[in-house]
Amino acid sequence: MLKMGLDELRDFLHRAFGQVAEDFEILDAAPMRLVLRTHVQDKHLRPGGTVSGPTMFALADVGVYLAILAMIGPKALAVTTNCSIDFMRKPVAHANLRAEVRLLKLGRVLAVGDVLIFSEGEEAPVARASLTYSIPPGRAAS
Amino acid sequence: MLKMGLDELRDFLHRAFGQVAEDFEILDAAPMRLVLRTHVQDKHLRPGGTVSGPTMFALADVGVYLAILAMIGPKALAVTTNCSIDFMRKPVAHANLRAEVRLLKLGRVLAVGDVLIFSEGEEAPVARASLTYSIPPGRAAS
Amino acid sequence: MLKMGLDELRDFLHRAFGQVAEDFEILDAAPMRLVLRTHVQDKHLRPGGTVSGPTMFALADVGVYLAILAMIGPKALAVTTNCSIDFMRKPVAHANLRAEVRLLKLGRVLAVGDVLIFSEGEEAPVARASLTYSIPPGRAAS
Amino acid sequence: MLKMGLDELRDFLHRAFGQVAEDFEILDAAPMRLVLRTHVQDKHLRPGGTVSGPTMFALADVGVYLAILAMIGPKALAVTTNCSIDFMRKPVAHANLRAEVRLLKLGRVLAVGDVLIFSEGEEAPVARASLTYSIPPGRAAS
Repeated sequence: MLKMGLDELRDFLHRAFGQVAEDFEILDAAPMRLVLRTHVQDKHLRPGGTVSGPTMFALADVGVYLAILAMIGPKALAVTTNCSIDFMRKPVAHANLRAEVRLLKLGRVLAVGDVLIFSEGEEAPVARASLTYSIPPGRAAS
Repeated sequence: MLKMGLDELRDFLHRAFGQVAEDFEILDAAPMRLVLRTHVQDKHLRPGGTVSGPTMFALADVGVYLAILAMIGPKALAVTTNCSIDFMRKPVAHANLRAEVRLLKLGRVLAVGDVLIFSEGEEAPVARASLTYSIPPGRAAS
Repeated sequence: MLKMGLDELRDFLHRAFGQVAEDFEILDAAPMRLVLRTHVQDKHLRPGGTVSGPTMFALADVGVYLAILAMIGPKALAVTTNCSIDFMRKPVAHANLRAEVRLLKLGRVLAVGDVLIFSEGEEAPVARASLTYSIPPGRAAS
Repeated sequence: MLKMGLDELRDFLHRAFGQVAEDFEILDAAPMRLVLRTHVQDKHLRPGGTVSGPTMFALADVGVYLAILAMIGPKALAVTTNCSIDFMRKPVAHANLRAEVRLLKLGRVLAVGDVLIFSEGEEAPVARASLTYSIPPGRAAS
């Protein structure tokens, strides 16, 4: 049911995102679900020993994007149109982040995903996000 | 672990929300979770045979509110500070709506909940929402 | 530059929204802008003497919808896909609400509007909202 | 009426944000308003010749943060609790981004700002965002 499996998604990530791809590791992909990790490095930290907001935003954004591509294949040029993100707890500075992505809608024109972000090793999520992607014409609906 | 059980929540709903309370039925309450139904009536419908956006917003809003009160008790005067809602599918006009609420954070000052809303009998959610409540001082944190 | 002027918008509101239309008064319409009032009545109030969240949501939602129709004409069947709303101050219980709507994007597929909501007579807004509408095929872009 | 003027804000930005500070230039600060520029560099670009979402998110986030500090002074440790962002148009790849920030609420506990982001030289905004910051105790309200 996936149009792209883990290996294809990893190849795509490296081809399409170049240097940024090194920050991410795709841990799992399943129909309408994906798990993505950010390897947190010094460049992702903010004073006070926490992970920056843009780092969490990027993880949620790339996570939903890859979950959509896993379903519709690599040809699509989906673009984020909306993101709502709640920062709920301070991330652990030197822990990696893990995003658990769930697609709630994969329509002809719009896809909606939601994301829980965790500092690895912690049980309570540090952030939640929901994102809408606009899918350009030229693909079949689900 | 709940400060208010189902019966107390139902009593509270009727005392605090008066006439509006008749629209809602609390189906289940558990730590950090609650299920709430809207009895969809003609006043909730929009032309084209669908349930209005404000009806779904109200369901999400009341659902998170009751989930918070279940945890902290009836004395709190929590107020909604933010809501982000995605309308993903057209609700079935004459089906009731069911909200599945999950509290993701219950802090000293802020609480965050997310909600999936379903037309009863359908598997795919019609909407998702996340809400932040501000909790006034004078209560213990969780 | 407007496809529908004030009179046409008012007619449309009453034809399309029936009983709900009585709650609203269109105060002004201009290219990419619209001002809408809610006549606050008892049914809009919440315990504690404030205007309910769904009342403010409905005002923002109808305001952006009418601002879009003013630009593209009455034939379109636009649907709300996302709303993010911040409740910032307690509305005055017996003052009407006024929404100042601004369209920020009116594309072929999606329109985005933002809204400031005021208790009439007060200077500081009680709420802000941004909404996305999906516009079905069959109309020209702007 | 500002607790920090342009020079103090620039000093603070460089002290508090270190290397990231080089990306930003504070263009203007006034009561409840601030204008901030991102110097767009190769690291901010995405394939297809556009500016990345996280770059726009970071601009909005830092812009509202500085607008709050301008009003309450450098001692506060405000944290972002929510961001809702709409990506409306594709940024021009090699133009800088300019954020026009407006604080809509500056309360004792929460502050809300909204932001329009422009590719410099273009008239239509590429994105809009609204952010909520939580302000820790120990400061006076406005």
